[in-house]
Amino acid sequence: MIHASICTIGDEILIGQIVDTNSSRIARALGEAGIQTTRMLSIGDRRDDIIDNLRNELKINDIVLSTGGLGPTKDDITKAALATLSGSRQYVEHAGQLAIIHAFLHARGLDVLDINRAQALVPDTCEVIENKLGTAPVMVFRFPAEVFGHPAVLYALPGVPHEAIGAVPDILADIRSHFRTESIVHRNLMVFGLAESALSKKIAPWEDSLPEGMHLAYLPNMLTGVRLRLSLYGCTPEEGNARIQAEIDRLKPILGDLIYSETDDTLENAVGRLLKTSGKTLSAAESCTGGNIAHMITSVPGSSAYFLGSVTSYAVSVKEQVLQVPAETIERYGVVSAEVAAAMAEGVRKLTGSDYAVATTGLAGPGDDGTHPVGTVWIGVAGPHRTETETKVYHNDRIRNIERFTAAALDFLRKNIEKDLSI
Amino acid sequence: MIHASICTIGDEILIGQIVDTNSSRIARALGEAGIQTTRMLSIGDRRDDIIDNLRNELKINDIVLSTGGLGPTKDDITKAALATLSGSRQYVEHAGQLAIIHAFLHARGLDVLDINRAQALVPDTCEVIENKLGTAPVMVFRFPAEVFGHPAVLYALPGVPHEAIGAVPDILADIRSHFRTESIVHRNLMVFGLAESALSKKIAPWEDSLPEGMHLAYLPNMLTGVRLRLSLYGCTPEEGNARIQAEIDRLKPILGDLIYSETDDTLENAVGRLLKTSGKTLSAAESCTGGNIAHMITSVPGSSAYFLGSVTSYAVSVKEQVLQVPAETIERYGVVSAEVAAAMAEGVRKLTGSDYAVATTGLAGPGDDGTHPVGTVWIGVAGPHRTETETKVYHNDRIRNIERFTAAALDFLRKNIEKDLSI
Repeated sequence: MIHASICTIGDEILIGQIVDTNSSRIARALGEAGIQTTRMLSIGDRRDDIIDNLRNELKINDIVLSTGGLGPTKDDITKAALATLSGSRQYVEHAGQLAIIHAFLHARGLDVLDINRAQALVPDTCEVIENKLGTAPVMVFRFPAEVFGHPAVLYALPGVPHEAIGAVPDILADIRSHFRTESIVHRNLMVFGLAESALSKKIAPWEDSLPEGMHLAYLPNMLTGVRLRLSLYGCTPEEGNARIQAEIDRLKPILGDLIYSETDDTLENAVGRLLKTSGKTLSAAESCTGGNIAHMITSVPGSSAYFLGSVTSYAVSVKEQVLQVPAETIERYGVVSAEVAAAMAEGVRKLTGSDYAVATTGLAGPGDDGTHPVGTVWIGVAGPHRTETETKVYHNDRIRNIERFTAAALDFLRKNIEKDLSI
Repeated sequence: MIHASICTIGDEILIGQIVDTNSSRIARALGEAGIQTTRMLSIGDRRDDIIDNLRNELKINDIVLSTGGLGPTKDDITKAALATLSGSRQYVEHAGQLAIIHAFLHARGLDVLDINRAQALVPDTCEVIENKLGTAPVMVFRFPAEVFGHPAVLYALPGVPHEAIGAVPDILADIRSHFRTESIVHRNLMVFGLAESALSKKIAPWEDSLPEGMHLAYLPNMLTGVRLRLSLYGCTPEEGNARIQAEIDRLKPILGDLIYSETDDTLENAVGRLLKTSGKTLSAAESCTGGNIAHMITSVPGSSAYFLGSVTSYAVSVKEQVLQVPAETIERYGVVSAEVAAAMAEGVRKLTGSDYAVATTGLAGPGDDGTHPVGTVWIGVAGPHRTETETKVYHNDRIRNIERFTAAALDFLRKNIEKDLSI
């Protein structure tokens, strides 16, 4: 199996000012191509550190992908380090990338500055994969077996996330043409509504009976629930998928409607699929989730086919005047109540004319209302047949509570639509 | 200076299924305490890999912080690896953590299972820092100088982000009581509305005249603009802050209202501060941003003091009937137009009775409307004195376009409120 290391270069990572999302996305693409990521490493913008660490990674891996440090500004020094590492004696201008730089900046109404132009200069020891999404090209350094004891390739990618990710298909094609790749099969099952330990207990007999060589991992995530990942190494995709599917089929009756997808998925996608399939429409009324349900729903391409709109009713006046929640209901039961959640859902359903509506009212924190604990949410779902409510209490900070309320609301909506569809 | 390495343990990182956000947040906290993170490393759930890599990091660093691999399920094997690495011969039960496990699960209405109870068992070679936010304790392994050639400490943290981050203050206190810490001073300046290269050109004379030893970094981010970070090592906080402030004061006249904050900040915080200071209220009407403006605004604690609510008007019917955008306006100018953005802002301002309102209408993609390119947005801001509009075109995918539209709208809103306040 081909072993890869992913190295992120930049002081901004090491001092914790930005989160490295590139490594994760690159690793996933490598894995799907049968390349195993053995390590990820983040190092700073220091020339000797870059050279030493990349050299070390090249010694113990077939492939090293570095990201970052290729920007136009003075703190980006990766290119000079790569020139030294590869024994380059001069820079050469890459005509193709220079043309892209011109086109890229002109399309944005920007002038081509000297520092932009300099990004088309690369060490004469590398090949270039053009970067059509930005100004810094991908540099490919090939080291024959005598340098590190085995043939090794270093791909230097820009750090801007969509540019780095955009370069991956070309890099994979390059890897395939230079190495023999082997397959790993991963399958995911999305489960919502059980904590990791409770889920583990529930499926322990099934887990213990998995065939040898099949690996199960639990990947809990507050927004998407627990992702169960089954892996099988060194098999064909067909064989691996069939063997894993057989185990999933044994698991399904154990988990029932706690499973919301048999692929790597999100709740907003699952809800969208149900609405699209059934030709129904949706609206939302949000208090404590503050617009995040609408945001998650509309992050799905094509959501305008089923999502009509939403009202964020932070002020009581908006609940009463826009959503038509009766003042008596609020007075009698309080803003954080099943009755208000139901009235909000019914109100926005009527206002927009949608088939379904989901509503939230609760306390994301930090302050509470003197009655309910911080982290309390009431969720309402109004549909063609009935209105349902449920409550949850979470124990997190404001941002996470908002995200968990949103996930719980999407899941409650999903279950209610599923119930209608199975009628 | 104390050197630290942060190691993330877990196959889910290496196969790219989750993004490591812990390392970034831990590194930031270390930096503020004068501890330099020299490397970050992610490795898989393989016993020998864990032992070898942690040993190697301990050789070249004073402190190693590992996160992850301490969960209750069978794929978490870090504890066994740590027992071997530290020469432990038996596990002992930590009474304090066991009590926390009981209290933690009872508060959530969950039973205490054997796998939960086992999390209170730790190698007899470690000290424990209790984890009050979860079930797995922090383990502290101290290695005398003869083991790695210098005194070294390994802190093993749980992987769940809020538990890992929650443990950091106790860990810093432990570090301070065992090492002499030195300071690094970082200061940030938030700039919105210029690309990194254009900004770099604009401030080049200032940058070239920075005193020796002061380091400038550009940290571009689509959501928050470019963060300029000035750093000074090995000085007292007072001296460092004063010397950096003098340089910031020289930069301010060059950048004017492109600067929106002199701390590490977000646009939604800046907008919130302006509204709070001036005692004004806000509402939003969102088409292409789909609720994300409301979500960003309400992610700020205390935002209910100034944010009244919003309408997401995905369907034309919601624009017309809820926001009272005249059908003629839509017909004459099209949905994506300055006129509709202005009418949406004015409509939601009237509907909610807010002082200010911000509105967006545009095309996040992937499909276009046959008239405007994907990535086009019109932003409207209605206020007590006037309604203003502006347009932007971005070149990203759906999710990023939504985020950039949101950031542009928040910035346009900020500038308009600032203009009113300076009248």
